[in-house]
Amino acid sequence: MTIKGIAASSGIAIAKAYRMEVPDLSFEKTSVDNREQEVARFRDAIEISKSELEKIKNHALEQLGQEKAEIFSAHLLVLQDPELIQPIEDKINNESVNAEAALDETANMFITMFKSMDNEYMRERAADIQDVTKRVMAHLLNVTFPDPALIDEQVVIIAEDLTPSDTAQLNKEFVQGFTTDIGGRTSHSAIMARSLEIPAVVGTKEVTSTIQKGDLVIVDGINGDVIVHPTDEQVETYKKKQQQYEDQKAEWAKLKDEPTITADNEHVELVANIGTPDDTVGVMNNGGEGVGLYRTEFLYMGKSQLPTEDEQFESYKAVLEQMGDKPVVVRTLDIGGDKELDYLDLPHEMNPFLGFRAIRLCLERDDIFRTQLRALLRASVYGNLKIMFPMIATLSEFREAKALLLEEKQNLINEGVQVSEEFEVGIMVEIPATAVIAKQFAKEVDFFSIGTNDLIQYTMAADRMNERVSYLYQPYNPAILNLINNVIEAAHAEGKWAGMCGEMAGDEIAIPILLGLGLDEFSMSATSILPARTQIRSLSKQDWTSYKDEILAMSTAEEVVEFVKEKANIQ
Amino acid sequence: MTIKGIAASSGIAIAKAYRMEVPDLSFEKTSVDNREQEVARFRDAIEISKSELEKIKNHALEQLGQEKAEIFSAHLLVLQDPELIQPIEDKINNESVNAEAALDETANMFITMFKSMDNEYMRERAADIQDVTKRVMAHLLNVTFPDPALIDEQVVIIAEDLTPSDTAQLNKEFVQGFTTDIGGRTSHSAIMARSLEIPAVVGTKEVTSTIQKGDLVIVDGINGDVIVHPTDEQVETYKKKQQQYEDQKAEWAKLKDEPTITADNEHVELVANIGTPDDTVGVMNNGGEGVGLYRTEFLYMGKSQLPTEDEQFESYKAVLEQMGDKPVVVRTLDIGGDKELDYLDLPHEMNPFLGFRAIRLCLERDDIFRTQLRALLRASVYGNLKIMFPMIATLSEFREAKALLLEEKQNLINEGVQVSEEFEVGIMVEIPATAVIAKQFAKEVDFFSIGTNDLIQYTMAADRMNERVSYLYQPYNPAILNLINNVIEAAHAEGKWAGMCGEMAGDEIAIPILLGLGLDEFSMSATSILPARTQIRSLSKQDWTSYKDEILAMSTAEEVVEFVKEKANIQ
Repeated sequence: MTIKGIAASSGIAIAKAYRMEVPDLSFEKTSVDNREQEVARFRDAIEISKSELEKIKNHALEQLGQEKAEIFSAHLLVLQDPELIQPIEDKINNESVNAEAALDETANMFITMFKSMDNEYMRERAADIQDVTKRVMAHLLNVTFPDPALIDEQVVIIAEDLTPSDTAQLNKEFVQGFTTDIGGRTSHSAIMARSLEIPAVVGTKEVTSTIQKGDLVIVDGINGDVIVHPTDEQVETYKKKQQQYEDQKAEWAKLKDEPTITADNEHVELVANIGTPDDTVGVMNNGGEGVGLYRTEFLYMGKSQLPTEDEQFESYKAVLEQMGDKPVVVRTLDIGGDKELDYLDLPHEMNPFLGFRAIRLCLERDDIFRTQLRALLRASVYGNLKIMFPMIATLSEFREAKALLLEEKQNLINEGVQVSEEFEVGIMVEIPATAVIAKQFAKEVDFFSIGTNDLIQYTMAADRMNERVSYLYQPYNPAILNLINNVIEAAHAEGKWAGMCGEMAGDEIAIPILLGLGLDEFSMSATSILPARTQIRSLSKQDWTSYKDEILAMSTAEEVVEFVKEKANIQ
Repeated sequence: MTIKGIAASSGIAIAKAYRMEVPDLSFEKTSVDNREQEVARFRDAIEISKSELEKIKNHALEQLGQEKAEIFSAHLLVLQDPELIQPIEDKINNESVNAEAALDETANMFITMFKSMDNEYMRERAADIQDVTKRVMAHLLNVTFPDPALIDEQVVIIAEDLTPSDTAQLNKEFVQGFTTDIGGRTSHSAIMARSLEIPAVVGTKEVTSTIQKGDLVIVDGINGDVIVHPTDEQVETYKKKQQQYEDQKAEWAKLKDEPTITADNEHVELVANIGTPDDTVGVMNNGGEGVGLYRTEFLYMGKSQLPTEDEQFESYKAVLEQMGDKPVVVRTLDIGGDKELDYLDLPHEMNPFLGFRAIRLCLERDDIFRTQLRALLRASVYGNLKIMFPMIATLSEFREAKALLLEEKQNLINEGVQVSEEFEVGIMVEIPATAVIAKQFAKEVDFFSIGTNDLIQYTMAADRMNERVSYLYQPYNPAILNLINNVIEAAHAEGKWAGMCGEMAGDEIAIPILLGLGLDEFSMSATSILPARTQIRSLSKQDWTSYKDEILAMSTAEEVVEFVKEKANIQ
């Protein structure tokens, strides 16, 4: 049986299914005769939960570092807290109720109490108790509580969706691939899968309802297929495909140190999107010519407070030094929308994608913004830095952001700190308004980088996370292509460069079109660089430039795809 | 003291403040000694609630019709239901608790029970009990429960926000004006205020925290000012302004039957936005040359089920007949986003403005859509009908919607029903993608109507309801003007017409620019038509056409506003 989904990360995985799901923890409140036995049952559940948490904590310590491991230390403390444990045992003894009811009622009392205190620390304790209670409850009910960090055999993960923290816990040694019910090519789990090079198929709608624990599953992250209970022949076929894919990767790898030139000898720049300094290793291994998008929000996430100027400086410096004289485009903080920071206490918004995020937030909270700008400016002497502001909608916003940057530069110079004189200052083009009047912007910015993930969702007025309107997320819609063309033409008219750092830059249908439109820089997942270089070396820029007007005048995305597939020989 | 807000509906109101707020209904559970007395207190609260509801019901019957009054009949039934009342009295008698606690606990039990039944009718009963309980609780606690329908003296309403149902209950005879903490020029309450011709200032952020019940208040809906505790001189000044405004209205009224021509004798069409057949009276009284936007969603709202084909037919026919040979542009169902229908049970979305709404919903639920199309087609023989599809993002959507229309037309003809052969089929241009490739659309549609409220929010990627990004809601941003220009040029190149039905069409800064861009039709609140006609008669189209290129090349909205104010002589 084959389930269709969205190919989110290339490669083939063949392994047994591991269902990652929060189990049904409902129970009936009953009265018990043997209270001693019930207390013992409760203590057993506590002990086994503790030993699991110890294992996870050690694993996290090894794989993810001190900070992430601390969460699990906090959970262990909860299980050792007599103020929580004793009242549960008392309840069993005094009221003759089953351990499930005693645990649930006591824990809920504490959770409600802690939550109602207007105090960040107490609210966190409430969340800890909630998490730990679920684990203990699962043991009482004899159901499995999923712990991706504890997986110790080769599996394919089946889940409704994976949170960023789930994906952070995945161990590549054992997790061969994953497949989810929801999500798209640009959801966080998909981006993470490509970065970890784990084959993935997302948005299948039905893997969790179809696949049982232990079922043999093939995840074909190249075509977006999930095969359940494959026949022996299918397994053989896919093992061959897996081998072919490995061979192709080896083939691509040969281009690692080759230039990115078209068949008619025109150079374009192939660079990578990264999230942390460690990611530069992948950029180098995949022959990236630089970093086209360094997402700095990871510095701010999974913490209890804002990163300091020094912490940031160290990260920026590390990336710049590791990349040598290659360009590094750093995007300033892009938080809000689907990316929240607990400690900033942002207001709940009806339409977060159209809300108070990125540069909008940074211009209001300029204390946060100035800290980042100072860290960047201090790092500027260690490499080839380009600073990029996200979500710019008006020239006033750009001017204001740039003025803050120049102010902090002057402050640093006054403080005797060395700052580069060379760095460029550009913007993400991801809001339709900015693409429409790119001509006006091009006079003032040093470069554009088109962020297609957001540009497409705003231009089509369709949430890219919403399955019901996913048919409108159309990278090849002629409206999107016309906006991109407008941006590139505006840049070139002023002698500036235009790049792209959305998913589209690494897409085989988009690449020929973008070459024809004259895009200068393509920024993508590191793992997409070598396939893209291979494709670009086969294309004639002159041919694709000659198709430009015809493509821009087309009426629908379907027309565009058909045309490109034929001309570029794509199946 | 003067509070600044957003001028939402013109005119001056001077009256005492009426605070419309849900009072604090919290209470302490206590034990009572005199149970008989407590039961009597509860019965009093029931009786006074009943008599209030009777009054409201009669008022609703007179002012709003049978259907809206039925809600209050349902509420009265709840108060007469012994299955609810008896257990409350029993609780007081058996448990010696106060009436508040007995009411709250008993009502909550029923509400929870009814809500948990998977049955639309029972869920509605739960909502009824909830509403009625609040009213009785308010009487027990001796706090005032606001009933806009019961206002019987001249007041200015002070509220955090007004719901559509609140505004529907306002009686123009007594409600002189209103002012709210939140909202903008395009929020529903603002649109309603203009339609009712009640002066209003919205988005003040602070009226509810500043103004007390009974305070004398001036609402200046022309300049967006709210004056609290005005001095005698201020009252005198504003009475004069009020008179001036009335005089100006009389002046405008003289143009009721005059053509809308510029100073250099060019005609443009000035038409109105309406929501119900009754609104055509206002269109005629204000000299409208037709209906540029008939919002059909009001037919679907405030009901328990979808309107039938016949119900819709009667409404469409009524509007067409009342407008005679004047054009009537009917927009098909635009539901979803901020407009929900309880009985459709739409999924909760993270970003409803970027979600499953309007044509997206109609194409999936084509049963609903076909019913509306049939009603429209049947009505087409009674006047000058133009059918318009909202939220069109791709040509494929337009083609699909038009195909359904033609299919239903053929079905009706086959059934022997008469259908006009004349009606035009056009689209709203409110999604950036559509504005960008208007050229491709213009080949297939009969007309465009630019919906600026949505076009602006998508183009700027800023929720127009979100105060924190309201600075980005920029009608005069050059990006918006370039998109509008693109749409008008595309229409004219194919011999089609382009109109505008967003708030911008009636705005005095926008009108000169739009004239210069060549807009053919301006659709606005009926009350804006005469001021707009007055302004247009003073402007030279040739002059404004000559400014076009200069305006389109500007960098910021501020530059545009400054230029227009100077050239058009606007303070």
